[in-house]
Amino acid sequence: MEYKETDPVRLSEDGRSIIAIDQRFLPEKTEYLKISRIEEMVDAIKTLAVRGAPCIGVFAGYSMAVLALDINKDHESFGADLKSCGALLVASRPTAVNLSWAVNRQLKLIDGMKDAPAEDISKSLMEEAVRIHEEDISMCHKIAENGLSLLKDGCGILTHCNAGALATTRYGTGLGPMLLGAKKGMKFKVYSDETRPLLQGMRLTAYELIRAGVDETVICDNMAGLLMKQKKIDAVMVGCDRVAANGDTANKIGTSSLAVLAKYYGIPFYVLGPFSSIDLSCKTGEDIVIEERDPKEISSLYFERDFSIEGVKYYNPAFDVTDNALITAIVTDKGILYPPYTESIKNAK
Amino acid sequence: MEYKETDPVRLSEDGRSIIAIDQRFLPEKTEYLKISRIEEMVDAIKTLAVRGAPCIGVFAGYSMAVLALDINKDHESFGADLKSCGALLVASRPTAVNLSWAVNRQLKLIDGMKDAPAEDISKSLMEEAVRIHEEDISMCHKIAENGLSLLKDGCGILTHCNAGALATTRYGTGLGPMLLGAKKGMKFKVYSDETRPLLQGMRLTAYELIRAGVDETVICDNMAGLLMKQKKIDAVMVGCDRVAANGDTANKIGTSSLAVLAKYYGIPFYVLGPFSSIDLSCKTGEDIVIEERDPKEISSLYFERDFSIEGVKYYNPAFDVTDNALITAIVTDKGILYPPYTESIKNAK
Repeated sequence: MEYKETDPVRLSEDGRSIIAIDQRFLPEKTEYLKISRIEEMVDAIKTLAVRGAPCIGVFAGYSMAVLALDINKDHESFGADLKSCGALLVASRPTAVNLSWAVNRQLKLIDGMKDAPAEDISKSLMEEAVRIHEEDISMCHKIAENGLSLLKDGCGILTHCNAGALATTRYGTGLGPMLLGAKKGMKFKVYSDETRPLLQGMRLTAYELIRAGVDETVICDNMAGLLMKQKKIDAVMVGCDRVAANGDTANKIGTSSLAVLAKYYGIPFYVLGPFSSIDLSCKTGEDIVIEERDPKEISSLYFERDFSIEGVKYYNPAFDVTDNALITAIVTDKGILYPPYTESIKNAK
Repeated sequence: MEYKETDPVRLSEDGRSIIAIDQRFLPEKTEYLKISRIEEMVDAIKTLAVRGAPCIGVFAGYSMAVLALDINKDHESFGADLKSCGALLVASRPTAVNLSWAVNRQLKLIDGMKDAPAEDISKSLMEEAVRIHEEDISMCHKIAENGLSLLKDGCGILTHCNAGALATTRYGTGLGPMLLGAKKGMKFKVYSDETRPLLQGMRLTAYELIRAGVDETVICDNMAGLLMKQKKIDAVMVGCDRVAANGDTANKIGTSSLAVLAKYYGIPFYVLGPFSSIDLSCKTGEDIVIEERDPKEISSLYFERDFSIEGVKYYNPAFDVTDNALITAIVTDKGILYPPYTESIKNAK
């Protein structure tokens, strides 16, 4: 496949290493890691140099393929060595579903080729890694195409947090329509909430959009309502962490407030994500537990200075749930779903 | 009058200096300035060590009185010297209305006592300074009493920015009911928006509330909607910068979004401020111009680190206007005003 400089994870030209954007230094510096050893891979995942569930999955796929190139091709230990590496990769971030999914996909391939020469297995692993990558791009592309059909050229779009290519692959989910639209020459005016406490909007979304040539403005989270009142926003587009069977959607803290504001100001509110984000085991948003994170993320102002005051509490919920009644449509790779969501989700194919 | 350690501005025990909390170091350090010379006074205002319009007014009143103590009591030049000092004070922050108002009040007193001995003028200036201070406390106290009548013991209150004693005197405006309630032994659970970009909520409001013994939790601005959904908030109380004749209210950016959220979740939304904040020359909020501030306040993350990205814009409106239809009541020193505001404002005495 053809790689781009903006891909968060890609293969080096000689095909023997992974080139990954070191996301710890964004947006100040765009540095690339060149990775070929298992220790480097584990380290990249652990330190969040490589982050975002789908992106980690793609990275893991390539990791297995690149490792296979250097492992002793004596057939017996070849498979066993690769499996040990796979276990190390999976252990580097146990909660990342896409990580174990990608590693297991490669391990299954190895198991299925038991009698084949190591060279062939190696080649197949690389083909599978590219396939994982291409599948993710294709899925994101479908979401982006579907989302783009909802936007008019020149319109103003508000987004929150980072649901872009850095967390997935080429197009991202929530940012996909903007990135794809820019590629097609459309001129959007995008506003990104900075997204406290971890500033994904100011750091990552702004970085991705400006690199794609999009007209991009960062605002503080509390400014979104004013922009809507000023009629600068024609649509709100956000990603999602999990969608319940009735369409209630968990996403980065602040998302549900944007949905309430959009409703009040008569602006469409779109959730974008892979169909696989819909968790039918959750009947409603009530079933989704809100993760509470370290209070220091707030009081330390992104770890730059200690503003904490003795006795004061700092409440740091990471997500909120947006009522399905506030969501105009859920844009997936299986099409655009409209209310009532219980039915449209059931009927999606 | 009896001063308190928490008063942002007070007279020293010997009555010859002003003791002011140096607000530049809050909340990390509570440092006090001891000020008696004109250069120190101008410097305190210019550097924002003393800030908040009413607080600056009180400071200016005392400044004139303290300066009079040390000026040569030869009658002729005494008045002229004080007038020069007054001009220097006014010039230190030209847009602060309360500053020139307080200085002029003292200058008028000097003019009215032309033939009196310098000692008597000096004494009168100090009495007038105390009167300015007491009037401000009394006005804030009335606002606080009126606001407190709207709250039940034990309730959850959300506030935004800082409308507390640091910006005014003992009770503040928006924070008044919480501070007065705490003094009366009531147990509120207060949540303060951190208030990006300048963090007045996390730095100043949290500082004041915890010093007053209030149960205080700081959240990021984008978390307010979730708290409302979780039924943790029984009332929203905010200050105001200017109120139009129809009740439309300009206040710190983010206020109008809270009002929309409160409406959606069925929570009363109260604006608190002196009756003098109502500007009858503004018919509606449309007449209020929104000040735009330095983009660096956003991209520099309160001046701690440079997150700016070349090409990205940072939009930094300082205020927004809340529609009167979203305001449950406007709490003033002249009573609680209810909609329709055009009438209740007209009828207030």
